[in-house]
Amino acid sequence: MLEKGKLLRIYVGEREKFENKTLYQYLVYWLREKGIGGATVSRGVLGYGQDKLLKSAKILELSSDLPMVIETIDCSSKIEAIIPELCKIVPKGLIFTVDVDIHKYGKEV
Amino acid sequence: MLEKGKLLRIYVGEREKFENKTLYQYLVYWLREKGIGGATVSRGVLGYGQDKLLKSAKILELSSDLPMVIETIDCSSKIEAIIPELCKIVPKGLIFTVDVDIHKYGKEV
Amino acid sequence: MLEKGKLLRIYVGEREKFENKTLYQYLVYWLREKGIGGATVSRGVLGYGQDKLLKSAKILELSSDLPMVIETIDCSSKIEAIIPELCKIVPKGLIFTVDVDIHKYGKEV
Repeated sequence: MLEKGKLLRIYVGEREKFENKTLYQYLVYWLREKGIGGATVSRGVLGYGQDKLLKSAKILELSSDLPMVIETIDCSSKIEAIIPELCKIVPKGLIFTVDVDIHKYGKEV
Repeated sequence: MLEKGKLLRIYVGEREKFENKTLYQYLVYWLREKGIGGATVSRGVLGYGQDKLLKSAKILELSSDLPMVIETIDCSSKIEAIIPELCKIVPKGLIFTVDVDIHKYGKEV
Repeated sequence: MLEKGKLLRIYVGEREKFENKTLYQYLVYWLREKGIGGATVSRGVLGYGQDKLLKSAKILELSSDLPMVIETIDCSSKIEAIIPELCKIVPKGLIFTVDVDIHKYGKEV
């Protein structure tokens, strides 16, 4: 199996909200609802964004707004279809896609 | 130095096994044995896969099967050579590759 | 908005130093100073590099030199401009770039 696909990565702050929900959690549920095959969220330990403020796991740990990365891989058409709506949900974050070669996508069914 | 290479990413569950060993750990040893130049494993804090079940670091932390990402970069020929065997070791996970430009690969030797 | 850009990823050890500062922290400040729009650092839980020594969050946790990944996305010209100097700051690490499609880059200003 070798299939062309797209990797989609979304960067948001840990404390950002969407409709009173935590944005990165909301996005995972939203991707699942949209039929995207899987998603993985990881938490950065240090970073900065557009406002140039440094966010760190060491300084002010309890109140910090660490960078969260949500990533998902699927066929290009499914990824492209969700991007316009996604851009509205994520008003401040970074969203990019990369062309990938998928060698395996879960268990054969 | 600028060299074409491939980034290989493998997504498995933290608790998946291969021959009674933890799969993600097994893969790191296996990549090293195959002569791949380096590998990095990171643990997701939230995610879902083919079964659509949400895995989270917050819920049921001790028993959870968090997403693990193993990634490695090397020249295209070395990465391509290991993919058929890798697909057999990882029966359920996701495996993809991306073309990259390598600007530096460890210390000059 | 759809813009071509580059993802830059830098892999260093957690305990590596540059001019008596922790290298991965130094790099985040340096990228910000260079006007790069944002950066995210994540810590691996397991990995090996050129020396083939396994670094793990489980073994010798306090003294371990875990893999750190610094990543940043910006337009291709800005990323390309910093690479020669970056290669001098990171004598042993891995540096690669990937072409990406940027769909959103922070808040519209």
